[in-house]
Amino acid sequence: MFKLGETIPFEDKANDVLTVGELLVDMISNEYGEDTVSDGYTRYFGGSPSNIAINAGKLGIRSHVASAVGRDSLGNYLINRLQSAGMATSGIQQVDDSTSMVVITKSQATPVPIFYRAADYRLEYNEALEQALIHSRIVHFSCWPISRTPSRRAVERVIQTARKHKVLIGFDPNYHPSIWQKGEDGVAYVKSIIPKVDIIKPSEDDAERLFGPGTPEEQIARFLALGAKLVILTLGKDGALVSTGNETMSFATKATQIEDTTGAGDAFWSGFYTAIIKGYTLTEALELGSAVSAYKLKFTGAVVDLPALAVIKQQFNL
Amino acid sequence: MFKLGETIPFEDKANDVLTVGELLVDMISNEYGEDTVSDGYTRYFGGSPSNIAINAGKLGIRSHVASAVGRDSLGNYLINRLQSAGMATSGIQQVDDSTSMVVITKSQATPVPIFYRAADYRLEYNEALEQALIHSRIVHFSCWPISRTPSRRAVERVIQTARKHKVLIGFDPNYHPSIWQKGEDGVAYVKSIIPKVDIIKPSEDDAERLFGPGTPEEQIARFLALGAKLVILTLGKDGALVSTGNETMSFATKATQIEDTTGAGDAFWSGFYTAIIKGYTLTEALELGSAVSAYKLKFTGAVVDLPALAVIKQQFNL
Repeated sequence: MFKLGETIPFEDKANDVLTVGELLVDMISNEYGEDTVSDGYTRYFGGSPSNIAINAGKLGIRSHVASAVGRDSLGNYLINRLQSAGMATSGIQQVDDSTSMVVITKSQATPVPIFYRAADYRLEYNEALEQALIHSRIVHFSCWPISRTPSRRAVERVIQTARKHKVLIGFDPNYHPSIWQKGEDGVAYVKSIIPKVDIIKPSEDDAERLFGPGTPEEQIARFLALGAKLVILTLGKDGALVSTGNETMSFATKATQIEDTTGAGDAFWSGFYTAIIKGYTLTEALELGSAVSAYKLKFTGAVVDLPALAVIKQQFNL
Repeated sequence: MFKLGETIPFEDKANDVLTVGELLVDMISNEYGEDTVSDGYTRYFGGSPSNIAINAGKLGIRSHVASAVGRDSLGNYLINRLQSAGMATSGIQQVDDSTSMVVITKSQATPVPIFYRAADYRLEYNEALEQALIHSRIVHFSCWPISRTPSRRAVERVIQTARKHKVLIGFDPNYHPSIWQKGEDGVAYVKSIIPKVDIIKPSEDDAERLFGPGTPEEQIARFLALGAKLVILTLGKDGALVSTGNETMSFATKATQIEDTTGAGDAFWSGFYTAIIKGYTLTEALELGSAVSAYKLKFTGAVVDLPALAVIKQQFNL
């Protein structure tokens, strides 16, 4: 049972945060529009688990990634980029399939990503993953690896082992039908995972995709009814509503300048995880996660050059 | 039974060549090397069936394409490009999957393409495809659509209908394990298709992948033993060896200047098809196909600005 005014006790372990899941190339058009004369695209390092792990490292805790990429030039590119960011890559599995990719053609309307799922969902639960997991204090994943098998099987075993070894589980219930395997009720599956984890951070859109429309209070109640232990419902410019069931608190946004929202959610997670590892209370960690997210919003890119958590804490007068 | 000195009689039909199969985006890096600082890529219109159809149109016969792309920005891009090339797009099926893509990162060694197969193999045998087929004199396909289901089922029905309606069948046996569905013996399947078609044009590499090593004469004999009716075995700078079983002829290459080999095989097919439609004998058509290929080799790109076949015939003194 979480209490917002208290810290989370962690055992002494060799690693702080292990993130599990999609590592992929974002291939983004240089110009707007589908019919533009320019056919130029640029590849970017992508995938929320790695972004969170890199951020957490910059903020000042130890992090590790477990993902699957192809044995191909794009897989090598992603591994090189992780190494350049100072990350160990022993948790990256190179598998016999193409490195996953998301193609985004910028448009004046909402750009619709095109998903090329391949290597990312071939992630296997192997000895290296089990060891990394047992020796971590927190494990984190999103809906990507559970949206398809065999990576779903790997995550199910991650959850079992994490429970057994007292590893805190954070889950991003970012359900979207476009990444789900065809012919399956993804909503029901995501709902079945929620009671098995410790902390979830849905957005209002995630909640609506899972439950249909509702007020923030109604959505929180629905997550709690499923068995969620700590729900962080993000509300964009309206901050966040957080509840343990016994306690519910509102958090105002700290964003003052919004250059680019890409990666703002990952920045929140990394700030929040860093803070709970560093012994801040949940309330303080929520403020600090929010501050890291506000810091990231001032810059363009999914992963920006974050300073140590203490610097951000000072900048935001926390 | 083909005779090299004779023409192929065709019924009067509304279309000359129908090409069936992969229509996809080639995403090619702007710079060489995997670790380059530049992460720029450029998208290109790709897929041999469309290249052959566009070429054939330029050379002076009527052509039509049947392919499947996604309902997404890249699918729209490919359709727009076909329209810009003056092609009808009524045979393009937009399906509920991502537009297929091949990513090529240029390297000093042989660049290894990364395949993202999705919409292309969702091609269905529908009423529009059947009508286009019945009203064509020639139908052409490669190993791509037969390498996976459901497009394989579509091609199997194309073959049946073509036989019934006296449509000449050209098949490119460009077998490669990297495009084949996992866990299946693609070699055996390709061999089972060869006796059901009229004309095949394997390269030496294709032959070796299907049969193992051998001299050109041995490879020709192996194709004939499977039931092939007309084998055009291309030998790169050594031209081609052609056989009907009863007659065998060597053809020297006509290439004098090689800027870029991309699309040279498609240029051959389009020149050959244009010539047999225009009433040239098989021997003449093989010379003309070879001339169109040599013309293409002087320019960069998979589809170059070909003149009418008569102009190429004159340029090459045929």
